[in-house]
Amino acid sequence: MISNYYTEIRLEAHECKRSLNAIDDALYVIGGKWKLRIIATLSDGSHRFNELQRAVKGISARVLSNELKDLELCGLVERRLSAQKPFVAEYILTDYSLTLKDVLASLNGWGAMHRERIKQSLADQQ
Amino acid sequence: MISNYYTEIRLEAHECKRSLNAIDDALYVIGGKWKLRIIATLSDGSHRFNELQRAVKGISARVLSNELKDLELCGLVERRLSAQKPFVAEYILTDYSLTLKDVLASLNGWGAMHRERIKQSLADQQ
Repeated sequence: MISNYYTEIRLEAHECKRSLNAIDDALYVIGGKWKLRIIATLSDGSHRFNELQRAVKGISARVLSNELKDLELCGLVERRLSAQKPFVAEYILTDYSLTLKDVLASLNGWGAMHRERIKQSLADQQ
Repeated sequence: MISNYYTEIRLEAHECKRSLNAIDDALYVIGGKWKLRIIATLSDGSHRFNELQRAVKGISARVLSNELKDLELCGLVERRLSAQKPFVAEYILTDYSLTLKDVLASLNGWGAMHRERIKQSLADQQ
Protein backbone atom coordinates (compact mmCIF):
# COMPACT_ATOMS: atom_id res chain seq x y z
CA MET A 1 0.00 0.00 0.00
CA ILE A 2 2.91 2.22 0.69
CA SER A 3 5.39 1.01 -1.88
CA ASN A 4 4.87 4.13 -3.97
CA TYR A 5 5.21 6.44 -1.04
CA TYR A 6 8.07 8.39 -2.50
CA THR A 7 7.05 7.98 -6.11
CA GLU A 8 7.17 11.69 -6.73
CA ILE A 9 10.39 12.20 -4.82
CA ARG A 10 12.28 8.99 -5.39
CA LEU A 11 13.89 8.53 -8.74
CA GLU A 12 16.35 5.78 -7.93
CA ALA A 13 17.58 3.97 -4.86
CA HIS A 14 20.55 6.25 -4.34
CA GLU A 15 18.36 9.26 -4.92
CA CYS A 16 16.18 8.08 -2.04
CA LYS A 17 19.26 7.71 0.11
CA ARG A 18 20.19 11.26 -0.77
CA SER A 19 16.78 12.59 0.16
CA LEU A 20 16.99 10.74 3.47
CA ASN A 21 20.32 12.45 4.05
CA ALA A 22 18.86 15.82 3.15
CA ILE A 23 15.99 15.31 5.58
CA ASP A 24 18.56 14.34 8.19
CA ASP A 25 20.51 17.50 7.42
CA ALA A 26 17.40 19.58 7.84
CA LEU A 27 16.45 17.84 11.08
CA TYR A 28 19.97 18.25 12.39
CA VAL A 29 19.58 22.01 12.07
CA ILE A 30 15.92 22.60 12.87
CA GLY A 31 14.82 19.33 14.47
CA GLY A 32 14.47 18.62 18.16
CA LYS A 33 11.98 19.92 20.62
CA TRP A 34 12.69 23.63 20.53
CA LYS A 35 14.32 25.06 17.42
CA LEU A 36 11.27 25.49 15.23
CA ARG A 37 9.31 26.83 18.18
CA ILE A 38 11.97 29.46 18.75
CA ILE A 39 11.97 30.33 15.06
CA ALA A 40 8.17 30.48 14.95
CA THR A 41 8.20 32.80 17.98
CA LEU A 42 10.86 35.05 16.48
CA SER A 43 8.86 35.25 13.26
CA ASP A 44 6.68 37.73 15.20
CA GLY A 45 9.69 40.05 15.54
CA SER A 46 12.76 40.47 17.71
CA HIS A 47 12.66 39.24 21.30
CA ARG A 48 14.89 39.70 24.29
CA PHE A 49 16.13 36.56 25.94
CA ASN A 50 13.61 36.71 28.79
CA GLU A 51 10.69 37.46 26.48
CA LEU A 52 11.71 34.55 24.34
CA GLN A 53 11.90 32.23 27.32
CA ARG A 54 8.40 33.23 28.39
CA ALA A 55 7.02 32.79 24.87
CA VAL A 56 8.57 29.36 24.30
CA LYS A 57 6.75 27.62 27.12
CA GLY A 58 8.68 25.10 29.15
CA ILE A 59 12.20 25.87 27.93
CA SER A 60 14.92 26.41 30.53
CA ALA A 61 17.34 29.32 30.29
CA ARG A 62 20.26 26.98 29.76
CA VAL A 63 18.61 25.08 26.93
CA LEU A 64 17.35 28.27 25.29
CA SER A 65 20.85 29.71 25.43
CA ASN A 66 22.30 26.61 23.75
CA GLU A 67 19.58 26.48 21.12
CA LEU A 68 20.11 30.14 20.27
CA LYS A 69 23.85 29.56 19.86
CA ASP A 70 23.14 26.67 17.48
CA LEU A 71 20.70 28.77 15.50
CA GLU A 72 23.22 31.62 15.30
CA LEU A 73 25.90 29.23 14.07
CA CYS A 74 23.57 28.04 11.30
CA GLY A 75 22.88 31.61 10.24
CA LEU A 76 19.19 31.47 11.13
CA VAL A 77 19.18 33.80 14.13
CA GLU A 78 21.15 36.94 14.90
CA ARG A 79 21.95 38.39 18.30
CA ARG A 80 22.20 42.16 18.27
CA LEU A 81 21.79 45.20 20.46
CA SER A 82 18.39 46.86 20.37
CA ALA A 83 18.15 50.02 18.28
CA GLN A 84 16.97 52.17 21.18
CA LYS A 85 18.05 52.76 24.75
CA PRO A 86 18.40 50.83 26.92
CA PHE A 87 20.70 48.92 24.61
CA VAL A 88 19.92 45.32 25.41
CA ALA A 89 20.64 42.15 23.52
CA GLU A 90 17.81 40.86 21.42
CA TYR A 91 17.37 38.02 19.00
CA ILE A 92 16.03 38.35 15.50
CA LEU A 93 15.62 36.08 12.51
CA THR A 94 18.08 36.52 9.66
CA ASP A 95 17.10 36.83 6.01
CA TYR A 96 18.36 33.30 5.57
CA SER A 97 15.67 32.00 7.92
CA LEU A 98 13.12 33.09 5.32
CA THR A 99 14.21 30.03 3.34
CA LEU A 100 12.36 27.98 5.97
CA LYS A 101 9.04 29.45 4.88
CA ASP A 102 7.96 26.34 2.96
CA VAL A 103 8.97 24.05 5.81
CA LEU A 104 6.99 26.10 8.34
CA ALA A 105 4.01 26.35 5.98
CA SER A 106 3.91 22.60 5.40
CA LEU A 107 4.23 21.85 9.12
CA ASN A 108 1.54 24.40 9.84
CA GLY A 109 -0.78 22.87 7.25
CA TRP A 110 -0.18 19.35 8.44
CA GLY A 111 -0.57 20.25 12.11
CA ALA A 112 -3.90 21.96 11.47
CA MET A 113 -5.13 19.02 9.42
CA HIS A 114 -3.98 16.51 12.03
CA ARG A 115 -5.71 18.39 14.83
CA GLU A 116 -8.98 18.36 12.89
CA ARG A 117 -8.61 14.63 12.38
CA ILE A 118 -8.10 14.03 16.12
CA LYS A 119 -11.05 16.27 16.98
CA GLN A 120 -13.19 14.37 14.51
CA SER A 121 -12.12 11.02 15.90
CA LEU A 122 -12.82 12.20 19.48
CA ALA A 123 -16.26 13.45 18.35
CA ASP A 124 -16.98 10.13 16.63
CA GLN A 125 -16.25 8.29 19.86
CA GLN A 126 -18.87 10.25 21.77
CA MET B 1 -2.50 10.30 26.21
CA ILE B 2 -3.83 12.01 23.14
CA SER B 3 -6.87 13.33 24.98
CA ASN B 4 -4.63 14.81 27.69
CA TYR B 5 -2.55 16.49 25.08
CA TYR B 6 -5.57 18.05 23.49
CA THR B 7 -6.94 19.21 26.82
CA GLU B 8 -3.66 21.01 27.32
CA ILE B 9 -3.90 22.51 23.85
CA ARG B 10 -7.46 23.71 24.41
CA LEU B 11 -6.43 25.49 27.62
CA GLU B 12 -3.73 27.50 25.97
CA ALA B 13 -5.41 27.88 22.59
CA HIS B 14 -6.49 31.47 23.21
CA GLU B 15 -2.99 32.51 24.28
CA CYS B 16 -1.10 31.63 21.15
CA LYS B 17 -1.39 32.22 17.51
CA ARG B 18 -3.16 29.45 15.69
CA SER B 19 -0.30 28.82 13.32
CA LEU B 20 2.14 28.48 16.19
CA ASN B 21 -0.20 25.91 17.69
CA ALA B 22 -0.48 24.05 14.44
CA ILE B 23 3.29 23.89 14.08
CA ASP B 24 3.49 22.73 17.69
CA ASP B 25 0.88 20.07 16.96
CA ALA B 26 2.90 18.86 14.02
CA LEU B 27 6.15 18.86 16.00
CA TYR B 28 4.47 17.06 18.86
CA VAL B 29 3.67 14.21 16.51
CA ILE B 30 6.64 14.13 14.16
CA GLY B 31 9.27 16.26 15.92
CA GLY B 32 12.14 15.05 18.02
CA LYS B 33 15.24 13.23 16.98
CA TRP B 34 13.79 10.03 15.56
CA LYS B 35 10.23 10.11 14.28
CA LEU B 36 10.82 11.50 10.82
CA ARG B 37 13.86 9.27 10.41
CA ILE B 38 11.73 6.25 11.22
CA ILE B 39 9.06 7.43 8.79
CA ALA B 40 11.62 8.11 6.08
CA THR B 41 13.09 4.63 6.58
CA LEU B 42 9.69 2.95 6.45
CA SER B 43 8.92 4.82 3.24
CA ASP B 44 11.17 2.20 1.60
CA GLY B 45 8.70 -0.49 2.65
CA SER B 46 7.86 -2.57 5.70
CA HIS B 47 10.61 -3.37 8.20
CA ARG B 48 10.91 -5.74 11.10
CA PHE B 49 11.90 -4.23 14.41
CA ASN B 50 15.52 -5.31 14.16
CA GLU B 51 15.86 -4.16 10.56
CA LEU B 52 14.42 -0.83 11.55
CA GLN B 53 16.83 -0.47 14.44
CA ARG B 54 19.78 -1.16 12.14
CA ALA B 55 18.51 1.31 9.53
CA VAL B 56 17.85 4.14 11.97
CA LYS B 57 21.43 4.51 13.11
CA GLY B 58 22.04 5.18 16.78
CA ILE B 59 18.56 4.47 18.12
CA SER B 60 18.24 2.13 21.11
CA ALA B 61 15.67 -0.68 21.17
CA ARG B 62 13.82 0.95 24.05
CA VAL B 63 13.56 4.33 22.35
CA LEU B 64 12.59 2.78 19.02
CA SER B 65 9.86 0.80 20.73
CA ASN B 66 8.45 3.93 22.36
CA GLU B 67 8.66 5.94 19.16
CA LEU B 68 6.84 3.22 17.23
CA LYS B 69 4.07 3.14 19.83
CA ASP B 70 3.66 6.91 19.53
CA LEU B 71 3.57 6.68 15.75
CA GLU B 72 0.99 3.89 15.93
CA LEU B 73 -1.19 5.97 18.29
CA CYS B 74 -1.10 8.85 15.82
CA GLY B 75 -2.14 6.56 12.98
CA LEU B 76 1.08 6.99 11.01
CA VAL B 77 2.53 3.51 11.45
CA GLU B 78 0.90 0.11 11.62
CA ARG B 79 2.25 -3.01 13.28
CA ARG B 80 1.14 -6.17 11.55
CA LEU B 81 2.17 -9.73 10.90
CA SER B 82 4.10 -10.37 7.72
CA ALA B 83 2.11 -11.81 4.81
CA GLN B 84 4.36 -14.85 4.47
CA LYS B 85 5.80 -17.43 6.80
CA PRO B 86 7.46 -17.07 9.19
CA PHE B 87 4.76 -14.74 10.48
CA VAL B 88 6.73 -12.05 12.24
CA ALA B 89 5.73 -8.60 13.34
CA GLU B 90 6.64 -5.83 10.94
CA TYR B 91 6.04 -2.14 10.76
CA ILE B 92 4.59 -0.31 7.80
CA LEU B 93 3.44 3.19 7.04
CA THR B 94 -0.30 3.78 6.92
CA ASP B 95 -2.14 5.59 4.14
CA TYR B 96 -2.50 8.47 6.55
CA SER B 97 1.26 8.93 6.61
CA LEU B 98 1.01 9.95 2.94
CA THR B 99 -0.33 13.27 4.21
CA LEU B 100 3.22 14.00 5.37
CA LYS B 101 4.48 14.08 1.79
CA ASP B 102 4.65 17.88 1.62
CA VAL B 103 6.38 18.10 4.98
CA LEU B 104 9.01 15.56 3.92
CA ALA B 105 9.45 17.22 0.53
CA SER B 106 9.97 20.66 2.06
CA LEU B 107 12.43 19.31 4.64
CA ASN B 108 14.22 17.45 1.86
CA GLY B 109 14.45 20.59 -0.27
CA TRP B 110 15.62 22.75 2.58
CA GLY B 111 18.18 20.22 3.80
CA ALA B 112 19.69 19.89 0.33
CA MET B 113 19.81 23.67 -0.08
CA HIS B 114 21.34 24.17 3.35
CA ARG B 115 24.03 21.59 2.71
CA GLU B 116 24.99 23.33 -0.53
CA ARG B 117 25.18 26.63 1.34
CA ILE B 118 27.52 25.15 3.95
CA LYS B 119 29.69 23.57 1.24
CA GLN B 120 29.86 26.90 -0.56
CA SER B 121 30.79 28.77 2.57
CA LEU B 122 33.52 26.24 3.37
CA ALA B 123 34.83 26.54 -0.20
CA ASP B 124 34.84 30.33 0.06
CA GLN B 125 36.97 30.17 3.17
CA GLN B 126 39.71 28.26 1.38
